[in-house]
Amino acid sequence: MQKVTPRSEDYARWYTDVIQMADLATYAPVRGCMVIKPYGYALWENLQRSLDRRFKETGHENAYFPLFIPESFIKKEAEHVEGFSPELAVVTVGGGEVLEEPLIVRPTSETIIGHMFAQWINSYRDLPLLINQWANVVRWEKRPRLFLRTTEFLWQEGHTAHATSEEAEAETIQILGIYREFAEEQAAIPVTPGKKSESEKFAGALHSYTIEAMMGDKRALQSATSHNLGQNFAKAFEIKYLDTSNQQQYCHTTSWGMSTRMVGAIIMVHGDDMGLKMPPRLAPVQVVIVPIYKTDEERAAVMAMANETHETLRNAGFRVKMDNRDGLTPGFKFNDWEMRGVPIRVEIGPKDVQNRQVVLARRDQPGKEGKLFMGVDGLAENVSSLLESIHQSLFNSALAFQKANTREVETYDAFKEAVQSGFALAWWAGSREDEAAVKEETKATIRCIPFDQPGGSGKCVYTGKEAKEVALFARAY
Amino acid sequence: MQKVTPRSEDYARWYTDVIQMADLATYAPVRGCMVIKPYGYALWENLQRSLDRRFKETGHENAYFPLFIPESFIKKEAEHVEGFSPELAVVTVGGGEVLEEPLIVRPTSETIIGHMFAQWINSYRDLPLLINQWANVVRWEKRPRLFLRTTEFLWQEGHTAHATSEEAEAETIQILGIYREFAEEQAAIPVTPGKKSESEKFAGALHSYTIEAMMGDKRALQSATSHNLGQNFAKAFEIKYLDTSNQQQYCHTTSWGMSTRMVGAIIMVHGDDMGLKMPPRLAPVQVVIVPIYKTDEERAAVMAMANETHETLRNAGFRVKMDNRDGLTPGFKFNDWEMRGVPIRVEIGPKDVQNRQVVLARRDQPGKEGKLFMGVDGLAENVSSLLESIHQSLFNSALAFQKANTREVETYDAFKEAVQSGFALAWWAGSREDEAAVKEETKATIRCIPFDQPGGSGKCVYTGKEAKEVALFARAY
Repeated sequence: MQKVTPRSEDYARWYTDVIQMADLATYAPVRGCMVIKPYGYALWENLQRSLDRRFKETGHENAYFPLFIPESFIKKEAEHVEGFSPELAVVTVGGGEVLEEPLIVRPTSETIIGHMFAQWINSYRDLPLLINQWANVVRWEKRPRLFLRTTEFLWQEGHTAHATSEEAEAETIQILGIYREFAEEQAAIPVTPGKKSESEKFAGALHSYTIEAMMGDKRALQSATSHNLGQNFAKAFEIKYLDTSNQQQYCHTTSWGMSTRMVGAIIMVHGDDMGLKMPPRLAPVQVVIVPIYKTDEERAAVMAMANETHETLRNAGFRVKMDNRDGLTPGFKFNDWEMRGVPIRVEIGPKDVQNRQVVLARRDQPGKEGKLFMGVDGLAENVSSLLESIHQSLFNSALAFQKANTREVETYDAFKEAVQSGFALAWWAGSREDEAAVKEETKATIRCIPFDQPGGSGKCVYTGKEAKEVALFARAY
Repeated sequence: MQKVTPRSEDYARWYTDVIQMADLATYAPVRGCMVIKPYGYALWENLQRSLDRRFKETGHENAYFPLFIPESFIKKEAEHVEGFSPELAVVTVGGGEVLEEPLIVRPTSETIIGHMFAQWINSYRDLPLLINQWANVVRWEKRPRLFLRTTEFLWQEGHTAHATSEEAEAETIQILGIYREFAEEQAAIPVTPGKKSESEKFAGALHSYTIEAMMGDKRALQSATSHNLGQNFAKAFEIKYLDTSNQQQYCHTTSWGMSTRMVGAIIMVHGDDMGLKMPPRLAPVQVVIVPIYKTDEERAAVMAMANETHETLRNAGFRVKMDNRDGLTPGFKFNDWEMRGVPIRVEIGPKDVQNRQVVLARRDQPGKEGKLFMGVDGLAENVSSLLESIHQSLFNSALAFQKANTREVETYDAFKEAVQSGFALAWWAGSREDEAAVKEETKATIRCIPFDQPGGSGKCVYTGKEAKEVALFARAY
């Protein structure tokens, strides 16, 4: 069986190999675009379901806005158009005719949703307006990478309007909390929540917040963002409301999103040289059953218990798959499901049938340590707690890795060394230009100003000025 | 409160009024496109969930293919390009540069999926390949109508590949059965399943099948289609497999889809001059609770029982909403929820509190006949059977309407009269040209050759030739 390139040899190649061999996705014949294959899409569906439930529980409703945005809309907010112009795909012909006004394929929907909000909102009674959209968006990508940077990608984009600045800020922070909870509790990915610097914030936002995760190569991945747009879009699109004293006021709006990039994070945070490790709560297949037999007689007995086990686990609500493919050895199947990162493998052989037991093999613990014998009776409960334990163990490993590779640095020399291979936490009081200089010199950027601050003050790692904040720096995807 | 235009006065206007006043959707600032508002999108989500479950139960997997299709792909299947050319939206600029090859915004994905299938399928072991995609598609629309014809719409498109012609045909028919079951059992819409005529079939298909429904104005709406593509796309895209004798063979492929048009069908089949009637199994809100009180004391007592009822029904798994909006009369609220078609309204007033009972009002039976008193205890069971009864009653009404307005005709004069206002069933042995002539003369088209045939033969209603089949004719959306 073909093996993936080891991470230590070529991380980028390892990433592509895993995606291909685990059957998650592939490049499309359209430059920069991808095809998400069934196994990858099933992961995305689980992510969607989990996130969607959280949005609905906090009062958000889904809606759908058009794919196409009139060019004039994009131009209404100055920073926004500047940020997105280089990435736009433009429709110039429709129904056989050259269009009078070209249409932009949405790179994000602030402008068209802003236009609609202006029509829907009249008075303070219409606020807050809490909308989410699941959609595809297009940002022209010159150096595409599957899931991480593709010209078309799938995401959700939330858009809300509020009466006050405080409410908009509270919404922005609440959503970041939902993203953090999702990343940690569902994807088993520890993240650092914080605020984006001026240079890194969203084009048109007042403040942007982010959750940043450390990938297996110690680079950072921005995993989701939440933006307080202040009144910038409200002013550009005339999103106004009558307040309780019958005065016209501009709304305060927010926007926030998580995308198919998160699939890239799951691959890179948990994967190893044997392939993927799916976090149990999102895994498309949580348990795979591999029956082992040689003779027809063995086959009959083994398949009977395998089918019984399959039914037991399925009825208990697990996502379980029976691998009864003919003509493949058990060893081949083991490797195949390890590559796909299925958290638990159930092996059933003739001896197991006699003892009414099965072998459970954990994907996260290779070799004998990860194998347990368990009785068929009471299996569902044991599988349930084993999945929980795998979730926790994936999270703990990722957290330990992140901590081991994050250094608090005081000098610029130490900083430069730290960001070569890991995260650096450093006091920061630099300007936008200083930040650009640091990026130029070290390839590292401010991933965020973490919410979790030591307090007090220190000496800025770059300018030497007195600094009130510690920033998290890293090379990033 | 504003009322909708009566259907008898102007059906098209009634349709638009209902969509606007029930808050389902609105036209976007982009010509031909729509914005699906939260209430309309919630209906679409329920439809999606229900259909998606059926596809997965029959072994289909979801995947995602790119929005953009190289122009050369569309041109590979001759009938396909001819059918879709006038409707295409074309991206000519990407990332600030004019593209060497223009990209088509997908009008449907046979071509790009065909290209991928050719790479994924090697041997008979890879078959059948059963894929579904939930996506947006774009077909330039000169005369847009919300949900029925919009330049961008949402749909699912299934694409499958099979080893034999028989299997492809069986898949095509199986899916049509799923659509029929969905329409009848979920949307409470009776449909006529059958085969499309040569003129009406999908561009590039061998056979197309359809389910046709009668709208409230007695016109037909094609509600979903399922196509046996034969080897047309397999030959155009080289979708081949090695058979068990190690010979290269072309696959047989199918495609099938249901779209946001179905929302239009739900509106037009069930709606009346008071607004929508949501079929209970898909209704975003199945039960709305309207508390009625005057004094603060009454309010306290009524709200206590209203909250208790709310919780009881929510815990029982119903989609239930409490309308505790201040400053609106109960009468206003009644009209509002009638407009939105909520199947059951629960009214709770001070007297009801004393008797521990509530009033249940059925949306499908206006006035006193639709009102029932029911005890608070055991309410969930009664609501459950009432929802079932409303579903059945909506289906029965629609079926009776369809039957009353479908005529079996033998002469062309009777035919012409019938299709002015209803469906006509007639023996048919005409050519493609005859079909075009009938359309020219009567505006009616063959909606399908129904599966349900009388057998034997008769005289073709147009040509007088001996005919073996009865066709269903109607003016259609």
